[in-house]
Amino acid sequence: MSSNPLNQGLPPTVARVIDSFSRLPGIGPKTASRLTFFLLRSPDEVSRTLAEALADLKAKTQLCSVCYNITDSDVCSICADQRRDKNLVVVVEEPLDLVAIERTGMYKGRYHVLHGAIRPVEGIGPDNLKIRELVRRVDEEHIDEVIIATNPNTEGEATAFTIQRYLANTGVKVTRLARGLPTGSDLEYVDSLTLTRALQGRSEMN
Amino acid sequence: MSSNPLNQGLPPTVARVIDSFSRLPGIGPKTASRLTFFLLRSPDEVSRTLAEALADLKAKTQLCSVCYNITDSDVCSICADQRRDKNLVVVVEEPLDLVAIERTGMYKGRYHVLHGAIRPVEGIGPDNLKIRELVRRVDEEHIDEVIIATNPNTEGEATAFTIQRYLANTGVKVTRLARGLPTGSDLEYVDSLTLTRALQGRSEMN
Repeated sequence: MSSNPLNQGLPPTVARVIDSFSRLPGIGPKTASRLTFFLLRSPDEVSRTLAEALADLKAKTQLCSVCYNITDSDVCSICADQRRDKNLVVVVEEPLDLVAIERTGMYKGRYHVLHGAIRPVEGIGPDNLKIRELVRRVDEEHIDEVIIATNPNTEGEATAFTIQRYLANTGVKVTRLARGLPTGSDLEYVDSLTLTRALQGRSEMN
Repeated sequence: MSSNPLNQGLPPTVARVIDSFSRLPGIGPKTASRLTFFLLRSPDEVSRTLAEALADLKAKTQLCSVCYNITDSDVCSICADQRRDKNLVVVVEEPLDLVAIERTGMYKGRYHVLHGAIRPVEGIGPDNLKIRELVRRVDEEHIDEVIIATNPNTEGEATAFTIQRYLANTGVKVTRLARGLPTGSDLEYVDSLTLTRALQGRSEMN
């Protein structure tokens, strides 16, 4: 029987799935129960597919030896794609940020995944991120421009400035994503900082 | 590469986990990505434990041969417990309803799990639920009282009345859970039906 009193009356096999789901972020004990009972009611194949996919997840994935994106081969599909511009590198915090940019379909260069942002309170400094690896890439590959696409928050800003400092001696062009009003927003409800950035970054109409 | 454009730039191993999570109720593609990347960042053990628990879920569980609760042996731990009152049976729709009642710590009888409620629109009638099995239990075991604890909604009501009809000839006492104001509620915000039931079911103060 599970040690969790919420799972009283459930067999250990079921309680163990609920417990495992509960360990995931944003999934409380009630959602975990709901998911587990959904799987119990579903065909065997649904839980088996998930189980197999999960078993492979860590075993078969690694970081791309070039850009540190998640990949299941030595070099990720983007770095391996000869049609992509090798002279352009977008720096992101996480692989999901890369996915978001890929989704626009507008970017044809390559990436560099930092795997986090600088968070002094949590003891995460430049050496815990793939910043030295970025500097090495800039030194060794022919890169014209590094586009910093860290998150527009305090940690992302700090990380962006740190990267800029690390790259200062390489002579590479360093740019950042534009800040301003998000599409579909309402001026009345936009926060002051966003509005300030939008004012500062205003562009002439043609 | 996954067929889902949201997973562009991700290796198939990762996309497969995201797809599998997305099939669960209440988990959209964004939550599925977040869960997957959480697992990628976590120690191997977290995803392995979940994978193993899921693999066992359907393989090692069955329905209790007495009450149809989920169990990993022939008879569930509640039915096997000699200290529980065998003359009292609470009828619930789902195993999670049983867990909710167990959590109160106030009930020492046994259960009967219907595995659903009557939903004519979805083609679920009395024969798709464990209602005949309940009638057989009442006939064969010595049961004094059947407490119907189906959900307080249209389907639960219909199911309760159907069970009452099926049990009419057995002579067993059939009761229902009380309806009324939920603890901690605010009269101003309680719906009219709940308030009506609370009025109808009012009890004398001592």
